[in-house]
Parts: sequence; structure tokens; C-alpha cells
Amino acid sequence: MDELQSNVIIGVDGGGTGCRVAIGTVEAGVLAQAEGGRANVTTDIDCAITNVIAAIDAAAKNAGIAPSAFASGTAHLGLAGAITATQRSRIAGALPFAQVTVTDDRATTLAGAFAGQEGYLLAVGTCTIVATNKGGAVRSVGGWGLQISDQGSGAWLGRAALEHVLLCYDGLAEWSELSVTLFAQYGNDPSAVVGFATTATPGDYGTLAPCGHCGRD
Amino acid sequence: MDELQSNVIIGVDGGGTGCRVAIGTVEAGVLAQAEGGRANVTTDIDCAITNVIAAIDAAAKNAGIAPSAFASGTAHLGLAGAITATQRSRIAGALPFAQVTVTDDRATTLAGAFAGQEGYLLAVGTCTIVATNKGGAVRSVGGWGLQISDQGSGAWLGRAALEHVLLCYDGLAEWSELSVTLFAQYGNDPSAVVGFATTATPGDYGTLAPCGHCGRD
Repeated sequence: MDELQSNVIIGVDGGGTGCRVAIGTVEAGVLAQAEGGRANVTTDIDCAITNVIAAIDAAAKNAGIAPSAFASGTAHLGLAGAITATQRSRIAGALPFAQVTVTDDRATTLAGAFAGQEGYLLAVGTCTIVATNKGGAVRSVGGWGLQISDQGSGAWLGRAALEHVLLCYDGLAEWSELSVTLFAQYGNDPSAVVGFATTATPGDYGTLAPCGHCGRD
Repeated sequence: MDELQSNVIIGVDGGGTGCRVAIGTVEAGVLAQAEGGRANVTTDIDCAITNVIAAIDAAAKNAGIAPSAFASGTAHLGLAGAITATQRSRIAGALPFAQVTVTDDRATTLAGAFAGQEGYLLAVGTCTIVATNKGGAVRSVGGWGLQISDQGSGAWLGRAALEHVLLCYDGLAEWSELSVTLFAQYGNDPSAVVGFATTATPGDYGTLAPCGHCGRD
């Protein structure tokens, strides 16, 4: 086989609940896939690296590709929370490929959604992204993470609902069926609400999104 | 000395930058004080326990009180982020006193501010608390932490300013002198803004509070 044409290509999609790997070559296409553990870089970069490498190894094994082929391989990893250059170069440095590109998962989400076609994308889940692809120029809005973005996402709605519960408790807002129901989930104890919020991930907040709770509010 | 009357009393005020300890008895009042390292329970409970114990030991030494006196002592610790019963009992269990009460720092802040007198309190700093003491009944609003409370605090304002910067960058809000100035602090790089927000504490956000930056916005 021509060595230049048979170079291994790896794609990795990593998020807060798991990661997925596809492995193949330009000529053969995708030869195998594998899934692995959570790979959110912000939450735990070491855990993300470990899980991604394990999933890559599993995919290579499924495809019958020896690890020695990695040395001339090319990989693109789209990992949730891989925001800073420091994080990205640390991850790239931990992988055995000739060429590694690490981005956050927005870039890979958009590439996957548009698949080379023009169009619009509205992704509303734990986070929110609105994007367009016009003549190959991809432009996106939002998706910068719950702390300072993702307005209207499930996480953003869930956090806002808890904020509203505390305003009701403090006497600054009117109780509604939604806020009464939500507060009861925490035993009507504001400290329990705050305790939840102290460690809540965007995914945790997302489980509280009002529309999933009580359609009448 | 009458043993019942000479029991040691310890007060601890712990926050994100340091902790303060006062030690004394009912008859003698405060005999000595000491300061120690940061003691925010949410950020690092083990670190908080270690720093509080070190500061208590230092205060006792300053007062000439032997650690053996702790066994009949009474302590109240008001520690930032000590929200849940689990956290509080873990901290209490790590201390050698006959009686230990652990609360978050709201209770001790209010007790210190009112000092037994009736009145109103408006505390606006990294967080916000509004409180009244009328006839011994203390009622407070806010102070539940940045994630779902503390509207109008320095941390809340700083986070809102960064959220606004990203909305400007995404074309959903108009740039202003404030947002331009703030964005420049991150090299006009949205990833740098997000990277900051990923690990920012309320204190970190507080340093960005708009009024400290640029009075004209």
C-alpha cells in the first residue's frame, strides 16, 4: 500500500458524558469506531486525555490498525472546554500522531452539522449555538459556555429557574407553580438549593430546564 | 478559677482570602486574636480546615491558653461556602471543642454588623446581602452565592460585563467604551475571555466590576 495514501486519520468528539472516536484512511473511509469515557477538558483535563487515548486505542484495535501506524497519522480532536492554547498544546503533546489539531467541540459540531453544505444551524441543548455556513464561511453565535454565554440553553434555563426560586424565597418574586414544584425538590430548603448550585455542571442545571418540568409556567 | 466560668470561647470568620480567630472567656472577653490562610469551604474544605485549626492554635498561643482547654471550649465558625449539613458536620468533627457550631459567613456577618442592635444592613462587595434586625428577628435577602444569587454584587457585575463583551463580539449587542476596554484586556480574543471565566472565582469576577473600570459606561 502506498504509504502516503494509507496514513491513518482519527476524529475525536469529546464531551461531558463520553467521547467517540472514528478511525480510517482517505481511501477506505471510516474503518472502525469506538466510544470512551467523559472528555470535558475544563472539568478534568487529565481524565479527558486518558479517556480519549483509551478510545483511540480501542478504535484502532477494532480496525486492525497497529499503534505503530499512529506515528504518521493525523488527528482532529474536538473536546468540550478545550478553550485555551495551553490546554490544546498539552493535549496535542500527549498524543502520538504526526499531526494533531485540538479545538473545542464547537468547530467539530459545526463541521458535522453542515457536512460541507450551506445552511443554518440552531443547536439548543445543554448549551446553545446559532450558526450559518454560506459559501464555506462559517459564522457562529453563542456556545461560549454557561458562565458567560449560552443564553436560552437548558443549562441557562435551569440555573435561571433556581435563581428565581431563591428570589421567591427571599420575598422578591411571586411564587408560581413552577417555582413551588422546583423548591420542593430541594425539601423547601434554600441551603439545599445553594448546595446543588455549588457543584452543578451545565448538564446538572440542564436537567432542571423548566419546559421539562411543568408546562404551565 | 471556676471551671464553668472559664470555659474558652472561640470565634472564627473565614473567607476566600483568609480567616480570623478571636479567643477568650465570658469573664475576660477577647484575650487574643490571630489571622490565617483562606478558608472558603466550597473552594477547598480540607484547606479551610487546616488553615482554621492553625489560626486557632496561634490565637490560643497568643492568649497563653493550653490546647487542653479546648476540650471544654465552645466555638462558632462562620465560613464562606459552608452551606450543607455534610460540610458543616465534617468541619465540626475535625475540631477538638466540646461544642462547635458551623454556619456560613452570612450568619456571622449579620451578627457582627448588628451587634445586638436593631437596624438595616446593605453589604455590597464581592457578594450582596440586604438585612434587617427588628426586635431580635434578623431577616436577610441575597448572599446565596454568585451562581444563583448576589444580584448587583461586584462579582455579578463583572460576570455580566464579560457576558456583554461576548454578545458584542457575536454581533448581538453594541460595543461601548466599557466593552471595548474590557475586551482589550483579553487581547480581543474571545477564547481568552472564556478561558478566564472557566476558572474565575467570585473574587476574580469582582475585580472586573464596571464601576472600577470606566466611569463613563
